[in-house]
Amino acid sequence: MKKVTYKFSSASTDFYFDASFAQLSKLLAKDNGVIVTDEHIFSKHKTKFRGWNVIVLKPGEQYKVQQTVDTVIDQLLELGTDRKTVLVGVGGGVITDITGYVAAVYMRGLRFGFVPTSVLAMVDAAIGGKNGVDVGVYKNMVGTIRQPSFLLYDYSLLSSLPKKEWRNGFAEIIKHAAIKEVGMFKLLEQYSLKEFQRTKKLLASLIEANAKIKATVVQNDEFERGERRLLNFGHTLGHAVENLYELSHGEAIAIGMTVATQLSEQLIGLKEGRRIVDLLDKYGLPTYAEYDKKKAFDVLKMDKKKVKSEMNYILLEKIGKGVVKTIPLKQLEKIIQDL
Amino acid sequence: MKKVTYKFSSASTDFYFDASFAQLSKLLAKDNGVIVTDEHIFSKHKTKFRGWNVIVLKPGEQYKVQQTVDTVIDQLLELGTDRKTVLVGVGGGVITDITGYVAAVYMRGLRFGFVPTSVLAMVDAAIGGKNGVDVGVYKNMVGTIRQPSFLLYDYSLLSSLPKKEWRNGFAEIIKHAAIKEVGMFKLLEQYSLKEFQRTKKLLASLIEANAKIKATVVQNDEFERGERRLLNFGHTLGHAVENLYELSHGEAIAIGMTVATQLSEQLIGLKEGRRIVDLLDKYGLPTYAEYDKKKAFDVLKMDKKKVKSEMNYILLEKIGKGVVKTIPLKQLEKIIQDL
Repeated sequence: MKKVTYKFSSASTDFYFDASFAQLSKLLAKDNGVIVTDEHIFSKHKTKFRGWNVIVLKPGEQYKVQQTVDTVIDQLLELGTDRKTVLVGVGGGVITDITGYVAAVYMRGLRFGFVPTSVLAMVDAAIGGKNGVDVGVYKNMVGTIRQPSFLLYDYSLLSSLPKKEWRNGFAEIIKHAAIKEVGMFKLLEQYSLKEFQRTKKLLASLIEANAKIKATVVQNDEFERGERRLLNFGHTLGHAVENLYELSHGEAIAIGMTVATQLSEQLIGLKEGRRIVDLLDKYGLPTYAEYDKKKAFDVLKMDKKKVKSEMNYILLEKIGKGVVKTIPLKQLEKIIQDL
Repeated sequence: MKKVTYKFSSASTDFYFDASFAQLSKLLAKDNGVIVTDEHIFSKHKTKFRGWNVIVLKPGEQYKVQQTVDTVIDQLLELGTDRKTVLVGVGGGVITDITGYVAAVYMRGLRFGFVPTSVLAMVDAAIGGKNGVDVGVYKNMVGTIRQPSFLLYDYSLLSSLPKKEWRNGFAEIIKHAAIKEVGMFKLLEQYSLKEFQRTKKLLASLIEANAKIKATVVQNDEFERGERRLLNFGHTLGHAVENLYELSHGEAIAIGMTVATQLSEQLIGLKEGRRIVDLLDKYGLPTYAEYDKKKAFDVLKMDKKKVKSEMNYILLEKIGKGVVKTIPLKQLEKIIQDL
């Protein structure tokens, strides 16, 4: 187990890399914690949860809604929890988002930590304190920013991860590489998903590097006034198509990154667009997709990154260098229509 | 209009005393704001709201629930609001609590301000950033702490305030005096509710002084690790009986302050208990009340101030000096039973 601590504005997060689930009980007493997880994780790892209070939710993005939050709160009340109780989200992004949100609002805030069980949660969703739920087709429309006290990384939890979930995680890894790390981009071009899956050390070091990219960006700009916006690369159109077509998050942002790559070529002269699309394709992600452009734009224009009649869109100057560009909605609509 | 600014951990609040509602449009552009209010206020002051986007809620504590929050969020989506939109809660404590909570979580946080329309909201509820909703009989079980950008005080709004609401506000004023300001306690003994109601200047200065007491306590201890706890004087048993018996907040905490006064006499030798009970009585508030002690204790022991098997209870050493005392739940249950 290797501990790295990142300090944020009002809290710090301890990252425990190369750890095992069993070590969770060293971080907090079992009778002082409540684990929130989903039916999939719970049934796969039943013995691991022995002795813990566990709230088990239905799995899937369609349950990332206020009603689920209400259910968790009712169960916390039934368990007789108090302000010193620590919530632990054990699962993918949906579980960490819901757990973090409940912990932010229940009794006006409990301590919480995460044991991410998917690549996507390990490199992205569990880090940075953004939490919340969807409202209808609008992703993450409600939530807060509040940092977890700890993240515990047990890579063995990935052994039962479905293929599709691996691809989802690598979509965010490709995003990090595209906006920040040309070296990592080349590494991803060099190896394949299969090689990362079967080479434990290679995977562990890739996940750790990505967790650190994300944590560092958040540390520099916790409340998303500057650099953190870059992490939305692929997410503007991505979020719009994600719930419209019930795509997985990775698929959706891969389509979003492809569109953002095309916009970058048109608007700021990106030259290496082909390599980005090829890399997404190599990791089994969709790129050029058919979708109802009018419907998608109607959702997109409600995105949280809109200000008045303009959208803050994340583009690439080159591989490894993301930038924020303000595009008038009318222009954006026309370009997307014509792509 | 007189501006006083208090700085808190992550935001500052501008207090505009002696202001008028019309000056709200100097603080923000009408097309950039959304007012949240209730049917009572809206129908009484219709013309004041002309030109503003207004969300009108049903009045009353029974609507301080998640479902109302969901409704407001749906309406904000329909209005096409963005992250730069400013929410303005115009109303009593229920409206300011809901508005502040929605503003804390919608799009992960909007700016917001208040125009309190009741004495209670002016001296207490609208100040200090605590917001949220009730869950069943549990008051304020869900919420956040987030400071408003501004508070605008228009005392003329009080002209249509029902008598009962005046008493509610004075319950919190008596609380401030009891825990913090022996001078104010004497002033309250000297004058009567009628005199405050008909002497504009006397009322304005009392409200301003109380707003400042609250703001100062919050500034010293925003996240309630020490001094801010004192503001819960009367609120532990108060909250328990409030929703059990559908009492008004002022009535409930007056009963709670009476019990806390009795506890203070028994546990830490308070000598002037009689004066507190007399003052509550003078301002038309209930004191010694009949209630189901077992039921009340069952709710009370879920209070947010409970830690494990002990309750942090607010007592009085003397008038003007509140203290936090940790009482084991078992002892507390017995004392309350025997009162």
